[in-house]
Amino acid sequence: MRFVLAAGTTRTATIEGISAAGATPELMADTPAIDAEILVYGQPVSSDLVPVSPTGCPTPAVISRAVRERVGFDVTVIDAGLAAETDAPTVSVGAQPGRDIREEHAVPRADAVFHRARKFGRSLPDDELFVAETIPGGTTTAAAVLRALGADLGVSSSLPENPLALKEQVVTTALDASGIERGELVDSPLAAIEAVGDPVQATVAGLTVGALESGSSVTLAGGTQLVATAALVRAFGCGEPLSLATTHFVAADPAVDLDAATAALELDVTVTDPGFEHSEHVAMERYVAGEAKEGVGMGGALALADRAAVGMGAIRGQIASVYDRLDPDSTPESEPPVTGGDR
Amino acid sequence: MRFVLAAGTTRTATIEGISAAGATPELMADTPAIDAEILVYGQPVSSDLVPVSPTGCPTPAVISRAVRERVGFDVTVIDAGLAAETDAPTVSVGAQPGRDIREEHAVPRADAVFHRARKFGRSLPDDELFVAETIPGGTTTAAAVLRALGADLGVSSSLPENPLALKEQVVTTALDASGIERGELVDSPLAAIEAVGDPVQATVAGLTVGALESGSSVTLAGGTQLVATAALVRAFGCGEPLSLATTHFVAADPAVDLDAATAALELDVTVTDPGFEHSEHVAMERYVAGEAKEGVGMGGALALADRAAVGMGAIRGQIASVYDRLDPDSTPESEPPVTGGDR
Repeated sequence: MRFVLAAGTTRTATIEGISAAGATPELMADTPAIDAEILVYGQPVSSDLVPVSPTGCPTPAVISRAVRERVGFDVTVIDAGLAAETDAPTVSVGAQPGRDIREEHAVPRADAVFHRARKFGRSLPDDELFVAETIPGGTTTAAAVLRALGADLGVSSSLPENPLALKEQVVTTALDASGIERGELVDSPLAAIEAVGDPVQATVAGLTVGALESGSSVTLAGGTQLVATAALVRAFGCGEPLSLATTHFVAADPAVDLDAATAALELDVTVTDPGFEHSEHVAMERYVAGEAKEGVGMGGALALADRAAVGMGAIRGQIASVYDRLDPDSTPESEPPVTGGDR
Repeated sequence: MRFVLAAGTTRTATIEGISAAGATPELMADTPAIDAEILVYGQPVSSDLVPVSPTGCPTPAVISRAVRERVGFDVTVIDAGLAAETDAPTVSVGAQPGRDIREEHAVPRADAVFHRARKFGRSLPDDELFVAETIPGGTTTAAAVLRALGADLGVSSSLPENPLALKEQVVTTALDASGIERGELVDSPLAAIEAVGDPVQATVAGLTVGALESGSSVTLAGGTQLVATAALVRAFGCGEPLSLATTHFVAADPAVDLDAATAALELDVTVTDPGFEHSEHVAMERYVAGEAKEGVGMGGALALADRAAVGMGAIRGQIASVYDRLDPDSTPESEPPVTGGDR
């Protein structure tokens, strides 16, 4: 099993009120680069910044890293359009940061990114991939792509109050700017990404199609952003079995209908509840309040903990430990442990 | 513990007769890119090419990967001047392929590479690093840097017959082209790399100095190329304890005096003998005949196997298994296992 994180950006995230994946819109450009470092090294390396929401909710990279420290799995990060330098090792698929989808072309050369990621996915020797994302603003680009494909599926939000009206307005403007009717691109997934999507979609869709073609099994580790990617995968004509592993927080979002997504896209869905209400730790309480919900493969990582029979109590303890290691005010800890690799 | 591989190139490798780290001089440019893939994924991913010497000796990446599959350790690859694309995830330190050292400037901007690698080494949270290299032609650049620093230490070769006269001639030409007397740069390690070194030296020296400064322990996992890097580290004024882990094949090379290196550079040296004479497998027999000897952290990986109490018989079995997986004529095997991560 290999856990692949596609880390990228879209300028769409800088629209005021769209995303909580960073303390400010400017800092959101750094979030995916640092998420990758936290997942790989256990802490930020290129800077001291820990990505938090405006209210202080820490990035879900903390949760996925905590699971990795208990369960152990190999991680590979793909540069799916990073806007900041990262000290995490990355695979290049030629992706560039995505533009604001209200421009005419959101992802120039989406086809080239898709095909390089597809070749990479086809070449990986692993029997099984978990594919995760980190891209602030990604639920908005997800909504736009779903509309372009004509899929009537709602999207979640990293904010406790999903700004659905704002997203709808941005999506409408985006489709208009590209001259696209709703559902017009049902058979043209690359055109949909190019017009109103983001580079992480091009990367994850390509990787997934390639891996499925070569006989690997794929679990999309994420929420509605990866539901949109699943819709892209299906639009590419790929009918292989495909799984989605997400969190209880996404499943409980009233804007999300996972059953509808499961049915429409033939997904095998796993929902994991980490029981954060049993913790009063600052790293978890904002999730209970409805923030973040998913990201950096959090739901997939929790499913891997379940598979490895590591209890959620142990995971919560490890989350607190990872968070306290990152917190500049806390007692310094020793080297972050990872207890295993592929298994 | 983190195993860091600095993968780069120097045009010096294309001098006829200098290196055996590729079937032809042209293919040597691909060797480090594919070595990284073998170490990370268990097989080449971006192509089907397995790096072999002109006589068919497989790259030592096979040995380090085999140890990783038995022992389990986290790997991070740094792009230390790759000339070919790789599908391995890499950390960027801004390195470019090195020039032929017979030109005036072998490593333009060696200082920038050194400082970025130093910052990276200082920021890594790991208590312990094993630092490895893959760069065809690296023993020749090692010889040149040792001469520039005035260190009277011999270098090994990936060829069974070390082309010492040819290397000496290349080194003399290189020093002349840069207008350097032997020993003139004893206090100017960056100038030595810039004039007659390679980008892997700049990377490994920077990483090592940075990691030692931040209190991590460092084992240079390699042969005389990393002896030269140790000389650079000492020339930077870094007096921290420093280890070198290499193979029996390097230690047995008559051109090499590890005791002299140990004494001159205050190195704690570990030599591991994988007992390849007990195997008749094609993956190991060329080593017994004196080829390759070291590379991709082979000696360090074998030392890690020793530390984990994994016997050399088990390692030899795993080497055969990794090699057979790569060999297009052999029975296909399933997904390569990795039994652990950091520990």
